[in-house]
Amino acid sequence: MTKSKCQIMEATYTALCRHGYADLSIEKIAEEFEKGKSLIYYHYSDKQELMVSFLDYLLEKMQEETGKFEDLEPDEKLDKMLEEGLAIDDPEMKEFRKAMMEMQAQTPHNPEFAEKFQQINDLLQKRFEKVLKENNVEKPEIKTEIMISTIEGLANRSISQENTKDLEKMKEEIKRYCLN
Amino acid sequence: MTKSKCQIMEATYTALCRHGYADLSIEKIAEEFEKGKSLIYYHYSDKQELMVSFLDYLLEKMQEETGKFEDLEPDEKLDKMLEEGLAIDDPEMKEFRKAMMEMQAQTPHNPEFAEKFQQINDLLQKRFEKVLKENNVEKPEIKTEIMISTIEGLANRSISQENTKDLEKMKEEIKRYCLN
Repeated sequence: MTKSKCQIMEATYTALCRHGYADLSIEKIAEEFEKGKSLIYYHYSDKQELMVSFLDYLLEKMQEETGKFEDLEPDEKLDKMLEEGLAIDDPEMKEFRKAMMEMQAQTPHNPEFAEKFQQINDLLQKRFEKVLKENNVEKPEIKTEIMISTIEGLANRSISQENTKDLEKMKEEIKRYCLN
Repeated sequence: MTKSKCQIMEATYTALCRHGYADLSIEKIAEEFEKGKSLIYYHYSDKQELMVSFLDYLLEKMQEETGKFEDLEPDEKLDKMLEEGLAIDDPEMKEFRKAMMEMQAQTPHNPEFAEKFQQINDLLQKRFEKVLKENNVEKPEIKTEIMISTIEGLANRSISQENTKDLEKMKEEIKRYCLN
């Protein structure tokens, strides 16, 4: 990815956190990007093309991060991954995940989004399954599916509901479930 | 709820399954309703007002259904409730849940939707917690939160992804988790 495309992606991230997905426009992304709107239009013809590229950029980032917990013990590794999955206390992260929830809700009508979310999911699934196998759990495939679903459900519910959940307690419970 | 309002709600359900939420319009709802558009506008000024009323209607339906498994044994009751929560094999139900996922993704920007989803959630939460207590599980509050999150995550993932999940196996796993 070229430097200017990378800067557009960073601006997209900031604009998504600020405005959410539905209200996002190339104009609003350009407000976060000093080189201006014309350079964005030079690279992308519309919001859809830009957002598909943004999902690709996220996927690339996630791939770059593969192995970042490699030096930890298996159970610490699981701990860190659960912590990341439930990291919605940070206000910026919360706004970002709201926008991701909106984008994911588009998948039934947006095949390009569906493909990207599928790839992101496949990566997460592989990564969690590997860690569960390192922890010698039984039925790692089923537990992976349950764990990712639980994290996704908890995150979405924490985002869309007023009552804050005790995510630290939830993390311990998911870990206990996984390792037993 | 008057009879004609009730018919409008039924038409809304059908139209939601057919078109999803984003593409829904009062015109499209009127196509499912023989008494026509003017009667809808007589009751509701716009799509937002109608959809808030629809969420209320769902909530009412759910309240009416309280106790429908009352005669079953505690573990059978849990079984039935999990079955209902994961009932997305049926094509109509799948379309309906896609639309609900879309509507839920609006909650951060739509306080009226947020309030209704909160009420629906509170009802579900109370109902699941009651059944877990009847099954004498430890930490019923935490398990309820994990269980509802898992069901929601699984349903959303099954809807937005190509690879079909073995939901029967998942149901057994969630049940095992709850009762242990």
